[in-house]
Amino acid sequence: MAHHVYRFGAGKADGRGDQTDLLGGKGANLAEMTALGIPVPPGFTITTDVCNYARNNQGAYPAKLKEQVEGALARVSEITGDGFGDREKPLLVSVRSGAPASMPGMMDTVLNLGLNDETVLGLADSTGDPRFAYDCYRRFVAMYGDVVMGVGAASEHDESPFSRILDEKKRDRGVELDSELSAEDLKSVVTAYKIEILREREVSFPEDPMAQLWGAIAAVFRSWDTPRARAYRRMYNISDALGTAVNVQAMVFGNLGEDSATGVAFTRDPSTGAKGVYGEFLLNAQGEDVVAGTRTPEPVEMLKARMPAAYDELLTVCERLERHFKDMQDLEFTIQRGTLWLLQTRRGKRTGAAMVRIAVDMAQEGLIGERVAIRRVDPERLSEVMHPRIDDERRPQLLTKGLPASPGAAIGRVVFTASEAEEWAQRGEQVILVRTETSPEDIQGMNAAAGILTSRGGMTSHAAVVARGMGKCCIVGAGEVRVDAPRGRLVVGDTVVQKGDTLTLDGTSGEVLLGTASLIPAQMTGEFETLMGWVDEVRRLRVRTNADTPADARTARAFGAEGIGLCRTEHMFFQPERIREVRRMILADSEDARRRALEAILPMQRDDFLEIFREMDGLPVTVRLLDPPLHEFLPHSSQDIADVASDLGVRPEDLAAAVSALREENPMLGHRGCRLAMSYPEIYETQAKAIASAAAEAVREGVTVIPEVMVPLVAVAEELQIVRERIIDVIEETFAAENVKIAYLVGTMIELPRACVVGDKIAQHADFFSFGTNDLTQTTYGLSRDDASRFLPGYIERGVLARDPFVALDREGVGALIRMAVEKGRGVKTKLKIGICGEHGGEASSVEFCHVEGFDYVSCSPFRVPVARLAAARAALRGEARAK
Amino acid sequence: MAHHVYRFGAGKADGRGDQTDLLGGKGANLAEMTALGIPVPPGFTITTDVCNYARNNQGAYPAKLKEQVEGALARVSEITGDGFGDREKPLLVSVRSGAPASMPGMMDTVLNLGLNDETVLGLADSTGDPRFAYDCYRRFVAMYGDVVMGVGAASEHDESPFSRILDEKKRDRGVELDSELSAEDLKSVVTAYKIEILREREVSFPEDPMAQLWGAIAAVFRSWDTPRARAYRRMYNISDALGTAVNVQAMVFGNLGEDSATGVAFTRDPSTGAKGVYGEFLLNAQGEDVVAGTRTPEPVEMLKARMPAAYDELLTVCERLERHFKDMQDLEFTIQRGTLWLLQTRRGKRTGAAMVRIAVDMAQEGLIGERVAIRRVDPERLSEVMHPRIDDERRPQLLTKGLPASPGAAIGRVVFTASEAEEWAQRGEQVILVRTETSPEDIQGMNAAAGILTSRGGMTSHAAVVARGMGKCCIVGAGEVRVDAPRGRLVVGDTVVQKGDTLTLDGTSGEVLLGTASLIPAQMTGEFETLMGWVDEVRRLRVRTNADTPADARTARAFGAEGIGLCRTEHMFFQPERIREVRRMILADSEDARRRALEAILPMQRDDFLEIFREMDGLPVTVRLLDPPLHEFLPHSSQDIADVASDLGVRPEDLAAAVSALREENPMLGHRGCRLAMSYPEIYETQAKAIASAAAEAVREGVTVIPEVMVPLVAVAEELQIVRERIIDVIEETFAAENVKIAYLVGTMIELPRACVVGDKIAQHADFFSFGTNDLTQTTYGLSRDDASRFLPGYIERGVLARDPFVALDREGVGALIRMAVEKGRGVKTKLKIGICGEHGGEASSVEFCHVEGFDYVSCSPFRVPVARLAAARAALRGEARAK
Repeated sequence: MAHHVYRFGAGKADGRGDQTDLLGGKGANLAEMTALGIPVPPGFTITTDVCNYARNNQGAYPAKLKEQVEGALARVSEITGDGFGDREKPLLVSVRSGAPASMPGMMDTVLNLGLNDETVLGLADSTGDPRFAYDCYRRFVAMYGDVVMGVGAASEHDESPFSRILDEKKRDRGVELDSELSAEDLKSVVTAYKIEILREREVSFPEDPMAQLWGAIAAVFRSWDTPRARAYRRMYNISDALGTAVNVQAMVFGNLGEDSATGVAFTRDPSTGAKGVYGEFLLNAQGEDVVAGTRTPEPVEMLKARMPAAYDELLTVCERLERHFKDMQDLEFTIQRGTLWLLQTRRGKRTGAAMVRIAVDMAQEGLIGERVAIRRVDPERLSEVMHPRIDDERRPQLLTKGLPASPGAAIGRVVFTASEAEEWAQRGEQVILVRTETSPEDIQGMNAAAGILTSRGGMTSHAAVVARGMGKCCIVGAGEVRVDAPRGRLVVGDTVVQKGDTLTLDGTSGEVLLGTASLIPAQMTGEFETLMGWVDEVRRLRVRTNADTPADARTARAFGAEGIGLCRTEHMFFQPERIREVRRMILADSEDARRRALEAILPMQRDDFLEIFREMDGLPVTVRLLDPPLHEFLPHSSQDIADVASDLGVRPEDLAAAVSALREENPMLGHRGCRLAMSYPEIYETQAKAIASAAAEAVREGVTVIPEVMVPLVAVAEELQIVRERIIDVIEETFAAENVKIAYLVGTMIELPRACVVGDKIAQHADFFSFGTNDLTQTTYGLSRDDASRFLPGYIERGVLARDPFVALDREGVGALIRMAVEKGRGVKTKLKIGICGEHGGEASSVEFCHVEGFDYVSCSPFRVPVARLAAARAALRGEARAK
Repeated sequence: MAHHVYRFGAGKADGRGDQTDLLGGKGANLAEMTALGIPVPPGFTITTDVCNYARNNQGAYPAKLKEQVEGALARVSEITGDGFGDREKPLLVSVRSGAPASMPGMMDTVLNLGLNDETVLGLADSTGDPRFAYDCYRRFVAMYGDVVMGVGAASEHDESPFSRILDEKKRDRGVELDSELSAEDLKSVVTAYKIEILREREVSFPEDPMAQLWGAIAAVFRSWDTPRARAYRRMYNISDALGTAVNVQAMVFGNLGEDSATGVAFTRDPSTGAKGVYGEFLLNAQGEDVVAGTRTPEPVEMLKARMPAAYDELLTVCERLERHFKDMQDLEFTIQRGTLWLLQTRRGKRTGAAMVRIAVDMAQEGLIGERVAIRRVDPERLSEVMHPRIDDERRPQLLTKGLPASPGAAIGRVVFTASEAEEWAQRGEQVILVRTETSPEDIQGMNAAAGILTSRGGMTSHAAVVARGMGKCCIVGAGEVRVDAPRGRLVVGDTVVQKGDTLTLDGTSGEVLLGTASLIPAQMTGEFETLMGWVDEVRRLRVRTNADTPADARTARAFGAEGIGLCRTEHMFFQPERIREVRRMILADSEDARRRALEAILPMQRDDFLEIFREMDGLPVTVRLLDPPLHEFLPHSSQDIADVASDLGVRPEDLAAAVSALREENPMLGHRGCRLAMSYPEIYETQAKAIASAAAEAVREGVTVIPEVMVPLVAVAEELQIVRERIIDVIEETFAAENVKIAYLVGTMIELPRACVVGDKIAQHADFFSFGTNDLTQTTYGLSRDDASRFLPGYIERGVLARDPFVALDREGVGALIRMAVEKGRGVKTKLKIGICGEHGGEASSVEFCHVEGFDYVSCSPFRVPVARLAAARAALRGEARAK
């Protein structure tokens, strides 16, 4: 018989902690904790297989499920001594989702299930607290009505009818708080809820506990496929095919008086990674109150004074769990009349900084090995460690302070709804999303925002958990802030901040600042350096940087860059004192005139290269020769044309005509890259001369120079052959004149599909290939990155593309062409040096691709260098693992 | 010992007619004619190997060459009885180039070589004509000075110094014609020539005949590498590596009085292909006079009266040569004092019409087989047969008449220099190049022009020969025309035509018409139909057409199209009565509003499809769904925006904002093709409904409909999957509602590199692949066709690209991707139908590629259909030949 149901309780469990795929994360860990002898309320898990069976069979279940659920429920009764539907000692259960991958807050939960007009009396009797019993009952009916029966679903953004009824009752009774309502009041609220359900859904609230249970199970399964759950999975690359498990577990109550509590705890600080239990709790409350952030909870240390035995037990459990799972745990607990119960444990989400510190600390504690530590750090999260921070000496005016929920700094314009955040971000604005509190509906707006600010909620509120997961700066519970979303403003005391005004968030201190702060770069922690040391021992791929200026080169070298993989030269043409000569060059009607203009730029370019060579002493520097179409250097508006014409001393009509003649329908596919050099060889000749001459000067200064000259946009081997020959001639002439000998390479950027297809021919004229994956992706897809925003997000949303191919290299399409080029290129030149210099060079999955395909190096922006180093090491480890 | 020199003469030859690569065309045929017993002056051929040896060895020759040349020269002396450098009976020789591929007028020739101050006396004595001897001498010195010594090369476009000296002499003597100068006069001209040579080159004219010979041989070899020769080879796809042979041959003289003549003849009419010898001659002239076109020659029939014996012998020789070579011959002859000598024979260049007629006639005469006839017709030339002709009922005013040198009609604006012709053509103008006479320097301008008109020269003048080779309309010898190039005008009587005015040339009648004529389509000849019949038996590839309208469909079907391979639908949106609804659709802010606008267009689209289905009764029709980005349908200038806004009843600001929002940086890579359907499914749904509903109506009318729906710009298999599903749903719903069952296909256009790479995945959702090679070439090269004109011609000029990849499919790059897509697609779906619908579908070498790769069909514009049919047959024949 297939096992659809896995039981746990009283120290025994059918399942194990490694059965995450089958039992979900929560179910597997409940089983594991039970088996470890940790106090867990008994219950059972319905497998993800059942979820997927139901999804594929119009909601029908496997034949044996009913029998197995009933058997498991009987076992829970046996352990607790309570009966499901029993009028005297009713067993109440929670029904929760539990997917193989964590999706906090994304799916549905029903608590206190099993209550009806009869069992509520039993609960009142057995607890001796009728008010508590009716409070449980009204919570259950509201939750069931909402989650299972869909009441109020149509009016998603308005107040729920259940809240409205409760508020009316409080108004009737002239009270402010729920706790001031009597058992009788709550009983009448329950009745009003049931009327509302019947009115809206035309179905009665089910009094039969068994019917309640099956309803809740179905609702949890269904919640796997809600749009918001799908969107979340898309964002975190979680497969829709996993399905969720359902956990049915005996209820314990944190709201049975002042000797009861509920809380969450992390075995280490999820924000900094510091050792020591970290968490918070609410006295006399149910778990949903903590997560929802409606009451601001107390730090877990306060428990020591209030319930020392329970606190000590909590610390012991934390230590056992961490040692057992060998990772920082995020756990939910409830104290029912002094007794500690664990409701959940899972790998704790953490900031990038905490990720690094915890991994390194645990390795140094001997809990895990160094290689495991490397695998514990997600390269994409590493960039958070390098977040810039706010320059304290020029700190803008403080507006208010909240809880520092997720570190880093964010500067942006204030918006008040998730959809505004998305819209503004899409048109390129940095925004700060300000909400009273966030809800799962806000996920996409949070993702679009640079930072998040809430006026309510604690360090484990929805906003805080999600923002940390995203590595996004976040401040929560800024209680002074009055959010007035309808009027598009927030108010702190006398200060009014309008929608569109700029705020700076300091996620490390919790400070909210008025206006724009200036930022200073991050400083690396000791743990970071330790980790990077381990990383460098493991990786095979070299990591270079894309840097156009000496400052970038310096930053990147500090981050461990082992050379420059892409030094673009166009910026050298754009600088104010040079652009005039560049324009003269473009407008020249003879080679001579062009050469004269270029000669004027030469000394400045040579100085640029010299400074970069100095910064990169001893490391290779790949210089890409001029790439953009020439019209990019010309003015376009008529005012600019008039100004430039007067500056150059030409007639505006003539300049306008030249601008118009150079205009291109598709500049991306136009007269650029080496095509320019084919038309105007003197451009690359001047650049080659500047490089060679700077190299000679650097060598005289004692600097070790390793220049690599890169020719862009080659489609045909003959282009490279012709252009390379001229470059080599010029470099050799210059070296001869300067009386130096310096080894150098001349290679090409592979960024067109045709170049991949004829990689063997091109390799004959190239010392190296560097894949320009930005343009290669554009041409392979026939997709202009500038124009893709109108539909590409929709493609990812709908799963037509798994990921944005401009972010993560498309292995199936672009990757296949790259593989072809590598095979063909190395086929004729075994030692051909191969790298990547598109933005993918700093993205982890793309770095892994480069490792697998035998690249020599990746090159990425300075701040991504550590990310790439780590990704390279992880790729090497995965390679070793596969090889075994 | 290597044979560098192949002798011929007195009925014996070292070489054979099939040794073209080694001996060049002229040398091989001289050997063949000699061996056939045809009267050929004795001589010898220096091989192309020697040319290539010299090119690779800084002009040095193989060691044995000198000895072999001297031996061969002695043998010529032996046959003629004259001695090279002999004072009594001097042997004079011609030194001519002779490449493996014909390059008329492109390379150098030296005649009368062997004359010096002593041998000229012997020539005067032996001919008894001192004036003749000195005329030969002055011609030789001028030719040698020009060709070998480079005198006057610096002043290319001015009068040569030798012409100037001769003109001065005539002025001195008060005479008009060369023939009025005496022997003494000519002798002093020779001296003046020699002074000019010494003055300009600082080297004396060589008196030693042997030195003259080696100088001339070197000059001929060098002439292989002149820019104009290179440009010619580029244009005709002749390899630079072939090299030229040199033919040294005893002189015979057509200028020894009224019983001497020189001429050229074709064994059939090269313009129409009509049977019978066709040609012209000049009495008392040397060959250069005929080709240069400076005197207008007489038709060859006139020779019958003047020299009946020589004429009869000429006819006999023509017949023998044609029977021997089994092809129409173009021959040069000289009659020296009544004796016929053949100087050259070669395959005659001919118009496309003549090519068809000669091939079919010869096959019907039994001279060649039908398959050989197919191989004799160049598909690229076939389009000439389908040239439109001028509508006689609305013929513009006649300006003048010349010789109909190359048929067809051309309309264009008048220019007077080759460089103007190139410049104007590059900016998209149709031009008529008008010259007194053309020279090899004009080649590229002629190529750029729509038609050519000269005021001098005959049917075998440079202009006529070259234009026929190009298949370009040409009228020569329009003697009434006074060309006044410096003033940018031509004058005929009182009529002045300014540069930029429009003329129409009727190349079939020789008429020059003022202004723009209206043209009517060609009618196919019987020979054409016969040939096409043979072609259709041989070919395997089906040939469809790209046709968007019923008229195009009808034309194409008349030309033999076997279906429509590409029916673009955008034009259906552009028509005036529809564009308003299209714009409403684009500007709509809801799917409903878009659907309403689309519904308004639906009935009109259905009628379009219905008409096309009727025309294509029984044949497949591939409809491509909407492809261009939507902004193409919106106005762009502010005036147009204002007009359209008022028409649509929207505010101009709003329309301008919408236009601006839809603007794209790179529209080629933008929101178009199936990406539109992913965003707005209703567009393709409406089109699918129109197609299905038209098909149903057609079937009710008794028409057999085979619809094939084509989805453009697929990059990712999921796009096609999603779009195809909707299309099939709509079609099935429509057929169900209309109560019909019609078989149809849904496939895709493969036009992106990524689609090729994932051809296997895409094939799972496609009934057919049709390669859109225009866009595939653009994306594979990263090259916008619209923007390529600034540098692509230079690439072809320099040989970086062998041919324009937008004209002839790039097999190495684009072809490799296509092959990959075919293999992957057929790998998962053996019967996958495969075609091509880019413009390459009508280009012969691309059609061959499609045949080799196992395509099912090619599709091309209506007028290219016969070209593609022929190309497909030739590809099949080549395939058979290879298989043997």
